[in-house]
Amino acid sequence: MSGWVVVAGLGPGDEALVTPEVRSALAQATDVVGYIPYVARIAPRDGLTLHASDNRVELERAAHALHMAAEGRRVVVVSSGDPGVFAMASALFEALEAGSAAWRALDIRVLPGITAMLAAAAKAGAPLGHDFCAINLSDNLKPWALIEKRLRLAAEGDFAMAFYNPRSKSRPEGFARALEILRETCADARPVLFARAVSTPQEDLRIVPLTDALPEMADMRTVVIVGSSLTRVIETPRGPILYTPRSV
Amino acid sequence: MSGWVVVAGLGPGDEALVTPEVRSALAQATDVVGYIPYVARIAPRDGLTLHASDNRVELERAAHALHMAAEGRRVVVVSSGDPGVFAMASALFEALEAGSAAWRALDIRVLPGITAMLAAAAKAGAPLGHDFCAINLSDNLKPWALIEKRLRLAAEGDFAMAFYNPRSKSRPEGFARALEILRETCADARPVLFARAVSTPQEDLRIVPLTDALPEMADMRTVVIVGSSLTRVIETPRGPILYTPRSV
Repeated sequence: MSGWVVVAGLGPGDEALVTPEVRSALAQATDVVGYIPYVARIAPRDGLTLHASDNRVELERAAHALHMAAEGRRVVVVSSGDPGVFAMASALFEALEAGSAAWRALDIRVLPGITAMLAAAAKAGAPLGHDFCAINLSDNLKPWALIEKRLRLAAEGDFAMAFYNPRSKSRPEGFARALEILRETCADARPVLFARAVSTPQEDLRIVPLTDALPEMADMRTVVIVGSSLTRVIETPRGPILYTPRSV
Repeated sequence: MSGWVVVAGLGPGDEALVTPEVRSALAQATDVVGYIPYVARIAPRDGLTLHASDNRVELERAAHALHMAAEGRRVVVVSSGDPGVFAMASALFEALEAGSAAWRALDIRVLPGITAMLAAAAKAGAPLGHDFCAINLSDNLKPWALIEKRLRLAAEGDFAMAFYNPRSKSRPEGFARALEILRETCADARPVLFARAVSTPQEDLRIVPLTDALPEMADMRTVVIVGSSLTRVIETPRGPILYTPRSV
């Protein structure tokens, strides 16, 4: 059995942010599996089969990848950003744990990528330069009460915060509620970064004080970063720089 | 004035984890500035001056980079991992804020890299696949009481946690204290990953239950990841896989 599964991070969009390690895995693959827009980033070639699937079928996709690898195929499961941050790596291991015992003998590797919050932070300056949390605001897979609890504790600890999936189509009111909670606990001037489609032609960055942050400023392609109490803006002729100093 | 400053992340060590974007900046640079072991990773070439400096002189190094860029040089400040995570990007903006007003007109960019916790998580499985915090355990730049407060709140919120700089030479007792706090708040079986020198020839990964975690298992080249209450191990013939499921 010479098959394998690699779960690879393609980064936020710009091909210059794909690591050589991931490129090499893609060059050796017989099959690429993933969500439609991520598979669309892979150039077709002879000997490579592209398997694009819709959102919300992560477990089926993962089982399909493991099944093909068990048959001797070399399978890359592609994720946007980093596969270990709210992406396909956990789904693959859920499928592994629930699936055929034989799958556990497979060669499975996770290859890291540039995750959205770090690409967004780099474009804006260095808002995550001190202690921070990453929170998935989608309540598809966890109760909203837990999200709310984590928001309050993160604010109490004065962490900077990065929010993934801030505003889903199915439950857009969650992000509005998250902003309310932050307004109860943080100063009005606390800077909030809305970073949409970072490193793509649609990239759009906006920095506003918490008091001016609106739910409509985010969609599913946006990562939102809320500064700590120390995060601040340096105004420059080239635009604002958002950063958190290292010292308290 | 055609000079610029790029703050670039070299990733955790393996050259296959350096992005093409960072490679391109290094190829255009006239000067590379950074901590000795990171500058040692840059191949010398004609037209490139390497400026290696010791640890704990981050602000001087940053000011030097800005000064050279203002003179028209093309300067890359190199960081290990991602420059925006407990690294040189915040130091550069501190120096910019405190320095000459003319510096604010400079072309300054931050180029993201693969940060240690995500490289370590990928090697171990997907322990950061759900909400998590990143905490710098060094108390060089913040009071220990704040670190302790953040540890308790992160545990209360059931975040997975990644610790950078867990055990400094100057204050090794901090990490022992952190483990005590975790033992007060988390179950004995909570998995802890010690990931040392990930992606280098010295790489060493160890997963132990919290009750068996010892301060000596970490040094300054180690990133420590503590799972949430849901994080678990899948035993396989190739070794343990550590992961956090997506669902609560």
